[in-house]
Amino acid sequence: MSEVLISEVGPRDGLQSIARTMATQDKCAWIKSLADAGLREIEVASFVPAKLLPQMADAAEVVTFAKELPDLLVTALVPNVKGAAAAFASGVHKITIPFSASEAHSLSNVRKTHLQMLEEVAAILALRQDRYPHVQIETSLSTAFGCSIAGPVPEDTVLRLANELVAIGVEEIGLADTTGYANPAQVRRLFDRMRSEIGDRCTSAHLHNTRGLGLANALAAYQAGIRIFDSSMGGIGGCPFAPGASGNVVTEDLVFMFESMGIATGVDLEKLMLARDVFARGLPDEPTYGMLPAAGLPKGFTYAS
Amino acid sequence: MSEVLISEVGPRDGLQSIARTMATQDKCAWIKSLADAGLREIEVASFVPAKLLPQMADAAEVVTFAKELPDLLVTALVPNVKGAAAAFASGVHKITIPFSASEAHSLSNVRKTHLQMLEEVAAILALRQDRYPHVQIETSLSTAFGCSIAGPVPEDTVLRLANELVAIGVEEIGLADTTGYANPAQVRRLFDRMRSEIGDRCTSAHLHNTRGLGLANALAAYQAGIRIFDSSMGGIGGCPFAPGASGNVVTEDLVFMFESMGIATGVDLEKLMLARDVFARGLPDEPTYGMLPAAGLPKGFTYAS
Repeated sequence: MSEVLISEVGPRDGLQSIARTMATQDKCAWIKSLADAGLREIEVASFVPAKLLPQMADAAEVVTFAKELPDLLVTALVPNVKGAAAAFASGVHKITIPFSASEAHSLSNVRKTHLQMLEEVAAILALRQDRYPHVQIETSLSTAFGCSIAGPVPEDTVLRLANELVAIGVEEIGLADTTGYANPAQVRRLFDRMRSEIGDRCTSAHLHNTRGLGLANALAAYQAGIRIFDSSMGGIGGCPFAPGASGNVVTEDLVFMFESMGIATGVDLEKLMLARDVFARGLPDEPTYGMLPAAGLPKGFTYAS
Repeated sequence: MSEVLISEVGPRDGLQSIARTMATQDKCAWIKSLADAGLREIEVASFVPAKLLPQMADAAEVVTFAKELPDLLVTALVPNVKGAAAAFASGVHKITIPFSASEAHSLSNVRKTHLQMLEEVAAILALRQDRYPHVQIETSLSTAFGCSIAGPVPEDTVLRLANELVAIGVEEIGLADTTGYANPAQVRRLFDRMRSEIGDRCTSAHLHNTRGLGLANALAAYQAGIRIFDSSMGGIGGCPFAPGASGNVVTEDLVFMFESMGIATGVDLEKLMLARDVFARGLPDEPTYGMLPAAGLPKGFTYAS
């Protein structure tokens, strides 16, 4: 039994930010190694035009493979109805729809206002209701803690969007620190407010380590009652800025933090190290990050469970 | 007014772990730039035999310089009575005596049992009482969260040593995660226990980022009521294990975390970036770390005060 769920986003968030494309069979081997390490939710692909992201052209094939792995919730990112239709058709268990809390970011990123994004989410919900009622839908409020275009994002805006999403039928809403702007006080406060507004519908934290606060922010989110955390093996993806700096929170370090605190993740760190090797075979010489992988486990380390 | 005190240890902890020796005038320029950035406590040297640590041979000269800087508490590390005598004679405001909570580490590091270390501290206290009553003395319980030789260190041992130190007259006791073994739950628990045993005599946290948990641990220590934090500009020192990995918590990142949380440090981050340049002039091509320096301040960032 794990007390927190680590949702691995490397195969999607990580791979789509690397220029080279990992071969489908190497992706599958890597995803299997991640599942073997005990990761129970993996975002394996994004359903976007292959012209825009050739790294994700094999999304359906990867989903088909991942669905055969035991006890794995297979998720994919979809930006719009078209992507959702393709994702649903692939048989994915869950989709995540990014929704920029900063309207400036939304306009710049997907050329949609908040209202247009709400309509898009509503259309995806309608499609699910018609034909794929078993698929989970999460909306991830990106730039929830700040935006590199607009700067600070008002908490009231985030709460209003969350309420509007709940009103149209979204069951799971996460907050994402897309730009690495969050701090622990803000994380605690905003998740507290979210949970008092929409309760357990506020599910997950997607945190970045851009300015080094990723794990401190994860601790704050945990203290606010959050039990689902996105992270990326080797810290790939999430716009790293600097050598040795990761964008996404590093799965290895996040798992180590929770396990050392006595909070079970269900993930085996030694097997996660093996998954790093499988990744490296698929994309040789691609940099990966992680403090725990560099330093090793402390002497006398024991898992939470 | 600052709410937390950042105690900069780079000129001691950092420089003594670099093989090259920074020239005295460069050290002084660097220390001045750190003080100019608003750091109000700087550990400027250690008083140890020059044969063992030639990088610290100019300790007395550096103290003499630093004491002229306004509003700066000048501290030095001393391992024994001999070092304390030299430090006192130099006119330092405060000394820190490292004391390994792991007896195995103490024997390996300074060839002294706990009892012998207690006698050493008592002798230093006696020397102060005789001739230097104005000098502050802190004992830093190193390996308090685990030891790379002995593995886990019992919390009861840490508490017993803290009580014994208080009994012989030590007024300030810090806990140090020398080996980067600490996790936030442990940090919170042990500082809580320390403060319920010896109250405000438990003053400071010296945390490492060896396994990536440095800032999360600092957050936990803050939540336990700790308001003095050691850290190192550029993360130098503290046994870094890996490229991009720091040993000591990086001052820039720590200041950023607190300031972004609305907790005033009194430190100016832009001026701290200038101090990095001064360091680099003194030790060209020496690697420094830090996520904030790489990523820059968030758009719309404001200081706590």
